[in-house]
Amino acid sequence: MKAEIIGIGTEILLGHTLNTNAAYISRKLAGAGIDVYYHTTVGDNKNRLYESIKTALARSDIAITTGGLGPTIDDITLGVIAKTAKSPLALKKKILRQIKRHFQKRGIKMPANNIRQAYVPKGAIWLANHIGTAPGLIVKTNKKFIIALPGPPREMQPIFENEVLPFLENHIFRKAVILSRTLKTTGLAESQVHDKIAGFLRLSGKTTVGIYAHPGQVDIKITTKAASLTQANRNITKIEKKIRLKLGKLVFGTDAQTLEGAVARLLKTKTISIAESCTGGLISSRLTDVSGISKNLFASVIAYSNKSKVKILRISPETLRHYGAASKEVAANMAVNARLLLKSDIGISTTGIAGPSGATGKKPVGLVYIGLSDKNKVIVKKFNFTGTRDIIKFRASQAALDTLRLHLLK
Amino acid sequence: MKAEIIGIGTEILLGHTLNTNAAYISRKLAGAGIDVYYHTTVGDNKNRLYESIKTALARSDIAITTGGLGPTIDDITLGVIAKTAKSPLALKKKILRQIKRHFQKRGIKMPANNIRQAYVPKGAIWLANHIGTAPGLIVKTNKKFIIALPGPPREMQPIFENEVLPFLENHIFRKAVILSRTLKTTGLAESQVHDKIAGFLRLSGKTTVGIYAHPGQVDIKITTKAASLTQANRNITKIEKKIRLKLGKLVFGTDAQTLEGAVARLLKTKTISIAESCTGGLISSRLTDVSGISKNLFASVIAYSNKSKVKILRISPETLRHYGAASKEVAANMAVNARLLLKSDIGISTTGIAGPSGATGKKPVGLVYIGLSDKNKVIVKKFNFTGTRDIIKFRASQAALDTLRLHLLK
Repeated sequence: MKAEIIGIGTEILLGHTLNTNAAYISRKLAGAGIDVYYHTTVGDNKNRLYESIKTALARSDIAITTGGLGPTIDDITLGVIAKTAKSPLALKKKILRQIKRHFQKRGIKMPANNIRQAYVPKGAIWLANHIGTAPGLIVKTNKKFIIALPGPPREMQPIFENEVLPFLENHIFRKAVILSRTLKTTGLAESQVHDKIAGFLRLSGKTTVGIYAHPGQVDIKITTKAASLTQANRNITKIEKKIRLKLGKLVFGTDAQTLEGAVARLLKTKTISIAESCTGGLISSRLTDVSGISKNLFASVIAYSNKSKVKILRISPETLRHYGAASKEVAANMAVNARLLLKSDIGISTTGIAGPSGATGKKPVGLVYIGLSDKNKVIVKKFNFTGTRDIIKFRASQAALDTLRLHLLK
Repeated sequence: MKAEIIGIGTEILLGHTLNTNAAYISRKLAGAGIDVYYHTTVGDNKNRLYESIKTALARSDIAITTGGLGPTIDDITLGVIAKTAKSPLALKKKILRQIKRHFQKRGIKMPANNIRQAYVPKGAIWLANHIGTAPGLIVKTNKKFIIALPGPPREMQPIFENEVLPFLENHIFRKAVILSRTLKTTGLAESQVHDKIAGFLRLSGKTTVGIYAHPGQVDIKITTKAASLTQANRNITKIEKKIRLKLGKLVFGTDAQTLEGAVARLLKTKTISIAESCTGGLISSRLTDVSGISKNLFASVIAYSNKSKVKILRISPETLRHYGAASKEVAANMAVNARLLLKSDIGISTTGIAGPSGATGKKPVGLVYIGLSDKNKVIVKKFNFTGTRDIIKFRASQAALDTLRLHLLK
């Protein structure tokens, strides 16, 4: 069974609104084992919507539209569906009563325009909207389905979840479940991860593997299609184990897990202090996104000026003068002194040049030193990051968190 | 002149990635007076991509694709365009050199796979990608254009801005310009902003006004359609002036301007130090996203533990015990001591409960105190924010930055 999603709305075509509905519905349909091969967006234009629904029904079993169900003259979906399904619009009293109730609850008289929303194609199945006035509808035509849903996500989502999914599950011959799992890595470039797992990327058949690169992070996504959720999980776990053998500690988490979350878990009862220069607070902000980190994170110092490096972190002015702030010596001192300042177990530091200004002949934009100190040793790593200021900051925060993660894994 | 946008990527069809490229490109095309009537998304499937490009070229003048230009076997765009335009793939040495340089800069040898990215349809115009390895391309076929762009927004956007837009402006007959301007506010709820400018929201005709609410921010978007950019600017400026009269200092910036950018501009030569507790470094990280802030930001202390509040910020243990860390007294002391610690002009502080744990009977999740100190006074504001941990952190950082902005405006 195949479905297509048609977003309706000139504001989407103008780029003023993101079509998040298509992503939401796609995820839900994948979970129900229904394939989605196309997303389309059209404006509030009758002919183009008509053509899009016709095209969708010619190549798929279900056309799902979102938007265009409001009370104004711009809202064209009901009329176009009536034309496509060749079943004329007729007043559905149950819908009208529901719309009137909606306004009564707010102490407002129903505006005359809203009666338009109660005229729906004859024979349509009505899907109640408990949030707004636009009705959801299912219209059957030539053994195929047109499903019309309101545009606002907070109205569309409950209708989809409570009405559309159960309907589809009763009407479809369940073919397969599509399931994905993402393994997240940092520290290597896309091409390097590619080379390590190249064999898996050429898989064809029910389970496939893809690589997705983001700044400072490379994701490996395993996707499978199976008759049941249990089988899908089994397919994925089989490939995941093989990929993990190739990648080892490179994988810091799966799916919604974050690098900062992985670090927080590994810290257990260890305490840390952070001295950030070029990352400007980003490492601390990311770590404090994790609830409960207050037991581990004693303090951070954003030592953005040399003055603060001297005054708070006790870096000697001679060291700063001789090696410069962006140096391995200063990174090492910052990490050690951050640790000693509050007697925490580990000290982390960053210093470098986030750009776009600040580069010198020997020190280019993107040069970053990361320091880590515990009671036994100090290590400093040197990086040359590329990108804009915010991307260099992010890459440096990834490198610092990953340095800490690898240290804790030992 | 009409254009269509085709997003390529199974991860979009599965709902794992939002197609933000379509929105970005649409906005830019609208500004250039090019109509967009359709967005389509297809997976990494050669036949369906071929059909989609054919359909797009049949009804529009320009088909713009995003994605599918990577080095792996999944990346099908170049081959499909070659087939559509009937011009075979050939090695373009200039592209290969650029890709090799990309890896050299990172000190990595180019993986063998990446050579695929240098095989492009014969006669294609190459659009240099300065961020990644995937080339952008313009291919002319039967007086129509196929424009292929990489999928990652940070690679696509500079190519679109620097290469595609100038190209289109040289090749199109300009019809009408659609232009938008967004006024950004913080500090009031959507309904309060709504009440202040309700009269403008009912405008109809060539210039319209809409409200868009985000956590901690309410945007007002003015959109107009005009024969020329000058006329469009005039239409917008006329309404903008009237709206600004109603909103006054509430507006902190327009379009791509940020609150942290507004603060940085207003700081001029003034220096600040920040003591963050519940915001965990977010204020500092946002401010250090602004290039050149090092002349203003002396230091930040993320005093996440009571120990660090005592040791680094010299808050008395009695004050902490008596009032608790989330209190107006501690916020005031933190702001004053942050300022004195490094003799900066202004001290800013945050302390509160970001949740989900940490609430007590009298102090709920979302309770946040913001402090500001200069040589004349200390002010503390109390807030009760709602939302998840990250949203409370963000709202608190908005409130702190806006407190600083309003102080600097005086």
